[in-house]
Amino acid sequence: MSADLARRTAVAAVGIPAAAAFVWLGGWFLAILLALFAVAGAREFYRFAERGGVHPIGVPGYAGAALAPLAAFAVLPDGGGLPVWWVGAGAVIWFIVVGGTTMALRAPVDRPLAAAAITVFGAVYTGVLPASLIILRHPAPGVAASTGTALVFLPLVLTWVGDTAAMGGGYLIGGPKLAPVLSPKKTWAGAVAGATSAVVLAPLYGRVVLERVGVDVRLWQLALFGLVVSIVGQAGDVGESLYKREVGMKDSGGFFPGHGGVLDRFDSLYWALPTAVILLRLFGVL
Amino acid sequence: MSADLARRTAVAAVGIPAAAAFVWLGGWFLAILLALFAVAGAREFYRFAERGGVHPIGVPGYAGAALAPLAAFAVLPDGGGLPVWWVGAGAVIWFIVVGGTTMALRAPVDRPLAAAAITVFGAVYTGVLPASLIILRHPAPGVAASTGTALVFLPLVLTWVGDTAAMGGGYLIGGPKLAPVLSPKKTWAGAVAGATSAVVLAPLYGRVVLERVGVDVRLWQLALFGLVVSIVGQAGDVGESLYKREVGMKDSGGFFPGHGGVLDRFDSLYWALPTAVILLRLFGVL
Repeated sequence: MSADLARRTAVAAVGIPAAAAFVWLGGWFLAILLALFAVAGAREFYRFAERGGVHPIGVPGYAGAALAPLAAFAVLPDGGGLPVWWVGAGAVIWFIVVGGTTMALRAPVDRPLAAAAITVFGAVYTGVLPASLIILRHPAPGVAASTGTALVFLPLVLTWVGDTAAMGGGYLIGGPKLAPVLSPKKTWAGAVAGATSAVVLAPLYGRVVLERVGVDVRLWQLALFGLVVSIVGQAGDVGESLYKREVGMKDSGGFFPGHGGVLDRFDSLYWALPTAVILLRLFGVL
Repeated sequence: MSADLARRTAVAAVGIPAAAAFVWLGGWFLAILLALFAVAGAREFYRFAERGGVHPIGVPGYAGAALAPLAAFAVLPDGGGLPVWWVGAGAVIWFIVVGGTTMALRAPVDRPLAAAAITVFGAVYTGVLPASLIILRHPAPGVAASTGTALVFLPLVLTWVGDTAAMGGGYLIGGPKLAPVLSPKKTWAGAVAGATSAVVLAPLYGRVVLERVGVDVRLWQLALFGLVVSIVGQAGDVGESLYKREVGMKDSGGFFPGHGGVLDRFDSLYWALPTAVILLRLFGVL
């Protein structure tokens, strides 16, 4: 076992149970953890931009990214039921503040339009999208921790197992590349293997886990859920590669030693989590 | 009277009553007019970016800009009361679609991060921010057209009169420049004159117009409203100049012959309108 693999394993052995504990605790604990990841993710995003010669407006960007998951919990009944109206007002004020600070801090030669735009885009990407995880954990007032945790882990497990299946399928089968320029190692065979594993695993997860915590979803709905979440998640993965490739970076950062940065770890989930929320709402679970 | 001034006057003589008619009609008529302006504004925004070597993703950008005012009306009781939830879900899907089309249409050398970010930023700027006008027109279910129209014209009149006062004050008094690099003609004296006119005019508008249509706001609230909306609006004006200056354009476009583009006409309002909504909500009017 190489030193790198040992480190990767150690980080996973600590990180996964710690993350699970925070999901189980839920509420402000989980919202604050998501806020920290949002700031770390936004930092990586802004570093991409810096390498491309654009200087995002850090402080308002980080503040916006961090506030998103806190606001997402605050509007839920378990979080106090803050009227959505005020979140909308806050978002608009934040948007104007980003514009205003850009005006104050960036000269016309500093590419201010791209600076302001990437400040907003990065905060939405790393703060607003993953804030949807809070909705899975607190799907209705006073839902049991076991139920909320089971719902959170549905897209997480599908994504992790799907990634592994995609890697294995690509390795074993080979064949034409999925996105040769962006992710030279990904193949169509791997993508199909990843999606197939999610389609099979989701109904199984429903039978073994969701039924036990009182969540009732039909098996065809879960199969469809697996398919859509897998495709969207894999697209999100390739999407992040585009931004890394633009500035010639291999990893987005070193937040998780041996696992790359926050964006590397969560790239699939940024797109998969809100998709999961929307689908479960359509299926009447949320 | 020069040909240019004649054209300016003719456009204003047609445009202002036409705009007033659409505000009076309200509802989908107004939402569709705002959607058209949103698309035209986003086009100008994206043209700034093109000149700076970034290529936003047009079609999803325009679609997002146009959908914002339509969605804003749809969630109001008068518009059918669409649950805000679905607007949030639609916004997230739109954000992912922008990311996905960027991936499909832009190579790493095409500055995809800035392209995706400016696509989102421009649509929010020209679509979401001015969509707040719909809330002023329909502040509560079944409000009379006269009341809603009076509320819409409160920030409009303050902005127009304030702009004129700022120009006059700057011309008459002169003195130090407000933002010499961005707007060489603006002076601090002009900015103070603009704000003062708004502080005086807003309570007057309250007495003469708002009281008559049954809207009850205290005079000190209106004076504060005038001050804040004027400062925010003037900042929005300078903010747009920053993006024009970045790419060396004098006007954002030629949408209104003799008056420049949509962004030139509405630059103050993009920031002033949502601010007006938030303040009136704080004052209990909305």
